[in-house]
Amino acid sequence: MSTATGTLFTISAPSGAGKTSLVEALVALVPGLAVSVSHTTRPQRRGEVDGVNYHFVEPASFQTMLAEGAFLEHAEVFGNYYGTAQARVQERLATGSDVILEIDWQGAQQVKRLMPETCSIFILPPSRETLHARLTGRGQDDPETIARRMAQAVTEMSHYVEYDYLVFNDDFERARDDLATIVHSCRLRTRAQGERHAGILQRLLA
Amino acid sequence: MSTATGTLFTISAPSGAGKTSLVEALVALVPGLAVSVSHTTRPQRRGEVDGVNYHFVEPASFQTMLAEGAFLEHAEVFGNYYGTAQARVQERLATGSDVILEIDWQGAQQVKRLMPETCSIFILPPSRETLHARLTGRGQDDPETIARRMAQAVTEMSHYVEYDYLVFNDDFERARDDLATIVHSCRLRTRAQGERHAGILQRLLA
Repeated sequence: MSTATGTLFTISAPSGAGKTSLVEALVALVPGLAVSVSHTTRPQRRGEVDGVNYHFVEPASFQTMLAEGAFLEHAEVFGNYYGTAQARVQERLATGSDVILEIDWQGAQQVKRLMPETCSIFILPPSRETLHARLTGRGQDDPETIARRMAQAVTEMSHYVEYDYLVFNDDFERARDDLATIVHSCRLRTRAQGERHAGILQRLLA
Repeated sequence: MSTATGTLFTISAPSGAGKTSLVEALVALVPGLAVSVSHTTRPQRRGEVDGVNYHFVEPASFQTMLAEGAFLEHAEVFGNYYGTAQARVQERLATGSDVILEIDWQGAQQVKRLMPETCSIFILPPSRETLHARLTGRGQDDPETIARRMAQAVTEMSHYVEYDYLVFNDDFERARDDLATIVHSCRLRTRAQGERHAGILQRLLA
């Protein structure tokens, strides 16, 4: 078998859909799959590890990288910048490893424009009630905060149509298996298979 | 859940790739999946059942159906006509059942043109040697016949690039599971999921 090029996945979801836990379970289940670590200008929180949760950088460094076109996608959220460094993703893909970007719809759109072969997945909660319960948190938030989170979630969810695949997180293990099925099927796409088995194809068609 | 629309699959392969056995095993494994029965003008062979292996029709009937636009795709092979009746496929899809068409690259192209959402799969043998061995049959064919079959297989295989997915039949069960993965993933495509879960989506986005 010849050297393969990995597949890039973008996974988006509204807050409260369970994306982070699902992606963790997916990566534990499927070999050859890694989650990209984003750069951010937001302050490091207690318990977070630089290079694991995020690459924590100064705003000036982020702006320099942005000016140099170093980001595959980036977004500003509440005054903080977040971005995916293109070089790291490309390096990983070049080794044949698949890469997951956990990003919002704006980032996913930017990636799809630059890399149309990207496999994009949207995760949805099973119902409005479940979403509301998850966004309510530990019951310490005021109704306005919860209403604002719900409105943001609905805005994010309205972009589901732009994605290749849609997964409902009504049952955690089924949703994880759905994600694994999508990852495996994307590895069976003609372009990926053609690169992976270039030698066999050459001999078959000789 | 609301009424779903099924997904249409086209599966092509050169003779000797093991397509028929794989599709049989796939249908036995995955519920809600049916193989479309083609119409043909070629004579019924011993052991073949009308309506099971093919719908055997007179050339005049076939031409009438063709003139009426009744076929989703059709092809002429060695003076015999083969075609897929559109009405039967649409009826099945409308009930939410997925339908497989086992057709050649010309038919698959016609279907993709009419129904771009079709999920197309190409099956390849693992090596030229395996293909040659399979096409040699029981050793009763002359070298010219085998060479002609090999040339036809290579021509058919050269169209693999036009398909969405590529499956290598090097290990029967793995190849069958690859097909099942592709079928499941196509059911998770946003359009299919959106139709299947229209009610949930409406409530989520309200």
